[in-house]
Amino acid sequence: MHQQTIEKPYVIGLDMGGTNSVFGIVDQRGTIVAQTVISTKAYPDVNDYVKAAVEALQPCIEEVGGIDKIKGMGIGAPNGNYYTGNIEYAANLIWEGVVPIGKLFEEALGVPCRVTNDANAAALGEMTYGVARGMKNFIMITLGTGVGSGIVVDGKVVYGSDGFAGELGHAIVDRSAEARSCGCGRAGCLETYCSATGVARTARIMLEKSDKPSPLRDIDPEKITSLDVYNAAEQGCEIAKEIFEYTGTILGKACANYALFNAPEAFVFFGGLTKAGHWIMDPIAKAYDDDILNIYKGQAKLLVSTLKGSEAGVLGASALGWE
Amino acid sequence: MHQQTIEKPYVIGLDMGGTNSVFGIVDQRGTIVAQTVISTKAYPDVNDYVKAAVEALQPCIEEVGGIDKIKGMGIGAPNGNYYTGNIEYAANLIWEGVVPIGKLFEEALGVPCRVTNDANAAALGEMTYGVARGMKNFIMITLGTGVGSGIVVDGKVVYGSDGFAGELGHAIVDRSAEARSCGCGRAGCLETYCSATGVARTARIMLEKSDKPSPLRDIDPEKITSLDVYNAAEQGCEIAKEIFEYTGTILGKACANYALFNAPEAFVFFGGLTKAGHWIMDPIAKAYDDDILNIYKGQAKLLVSTLKGSEAGVLGASALGWE
Repeated sequence: MHQQTIEKPYVIGLDMGGTNSVFGIVDQRGTIVAQTVISTKAYPDVNDYVKAAVEALQPCIEEVGGIDKIKGMGIGAPNGNYYTGNIEYAANLIWEGVVPIGKLFEEALGVPCRVTNDANAAALGEMTYGVARGMKNFIMITLGTGVGSGIVVDGKVVYGSDGFAGELGHAIVDRSAEARSCGCGRAGCLETYCSATGVARTARIMLEKSDKPSPLRDIDPEKITSLDVYNAAEQGCEIAKEIFEYTGTILGKACANYALFNAPEAFVFFGGLTKAGHWIMDPIAKAYDDDILNIYKGQAKLLVSTLKGSEAGVLGASALGWE
Repeated sequence: MHQQTIEKPYVIGLDMGGTNSVFGIVDQRGTIVAQTVISTKAYPDVNDYVKAAVEALQPCIEEVGGIDKIKGMGIGAPNGNYYTGNIEYAANLIWEGVVPIGKLFEEALGVPCRVTNDANAAALGEMTYGVARGMKNFIMITLGTGVGSGIVVDGKVVYGSDGFAGELGHAIVDRSAEARSCGCGRAGCLETYCSATGVARTARIMLEKSDKPSPLRDIDPEKITSLDVYNAAEQGCEIAKEIFEYTGTILGKACANYALFNAPEAFVFFGGLTKAGHWIMDPIAKAYDDDILNIYKGQAKLLVSTLKGSEAGVLGASALGWE
């Protein structure tokens, strides 16, 4: 008996942000065997960007034995469209309009290239290498500058009729007159409460309303992060605990509504807010359990991603390369 | 050249309600070529029910040339589970607990038998014979005694991790102190506003609040139907128009949130309330357009089922028989 040789044992993952683009060569276990970074915003012409990327990638590709060892490439990018392989009207990228990023990399590298947005890539990453391995139906919630989501049904990410399905961060969770205005032009979106900026907004409101002492009062109210709130909670600050209670309750209730779609096995949370540990997860779990429709009770696990934050983006994107 | 002969050109559809069970033999175009009805609640033992059903079906089966002409059977039943083929703890059926209805019919008839709930069957019916033909991503909303939903992603009904996904009628749309109590034990579910009983409830509240004249005042307030409200609206009744405006606005806003899940090509509405025509559809469309996230604007059609109400249940169920 001899070991089976995998012809193309690696994929390339590209985690594209407005500022930087991180590239990794990833094996089937989810180990990043080589990595490189280029600036995203330094190339006003996307062709120059792709050229720079391929140049930066070259040594990484050599390291694993050349391009013949690469099965494919996956790109997680803002407004990345799975169906077209394009980036379409991404507000925080330097390129305007429609950018055929998938086609450009395919031509430059000679390997198949798939594109999706970061939250869908994150869902794929969890399913391929993370806590959702083996799951067929789950919902990924990414808690960052915004709130993103990737929905998995029957083992596949839901892309919908246009490639842009799964925007649960823009579910309206407050229809009252006090609903917070959202960057999308509407008001009351989940994102305005549970994103990093949402938590900072809550902190400012709660600090103003209360006159309890709090270590958060020593921080510029415009710059409070969820890490600051976590540190305060750990020091016993009541306001900090209330902030997480408020945020987690909104998120838990929202998830109970989302469960009606695909009766998920799990919700997987990723991003800065999850670092608050039990301070945020306990209120999420309580609100979810209180609110979930009877027939789904006890069905979904509420999990936190175990992928390293710095690697998750590249791993998620790379998961597309195996398709 | 000679015409291709289809070996098994028919399926059986069973539309099971708490009172009656309607069976139909259906061809590939969605024509019900033979039909029969038995009582559901007259058989406390489900084995007697299946025996009676097969007996009633026999002449219909003969009519199309015998059981060899039948490709399969589909059952749309309350709490019907696609994965197990069972009816599980259906509140409004005479049988308690778990009923292996699929297996019983398979054994009795000798053809494959699939089971799902009525709203999922309705979605399949629209996709196979109705307004959703050719669509890969849409959401079916059934407006009856309750509000049901069937979600289609990539050409397949979403059954989720347990076979019971797609309960959008229980999305909580009102979290205020005035939220209406729901049969599910919670409060503020869409169903409490947009089901037949929800509309009647709205009518009672609005008639009490106002002292405007209305033909609805001549009807026992406990018995007002959406047809009564429609008739009143047609006669120019302001309160009736307000009832549809209120109901349609809630439904349209809810649908705008649902669109975030699968970016659907269409919502297909079915049931009594849709008979109110533009009185209900205009407010749905307005609220949906006002509320929908920018990237989905103008994408989803808001359609009313064109299947005949009396046939839709059987057709929907029968669609499962082709799988």
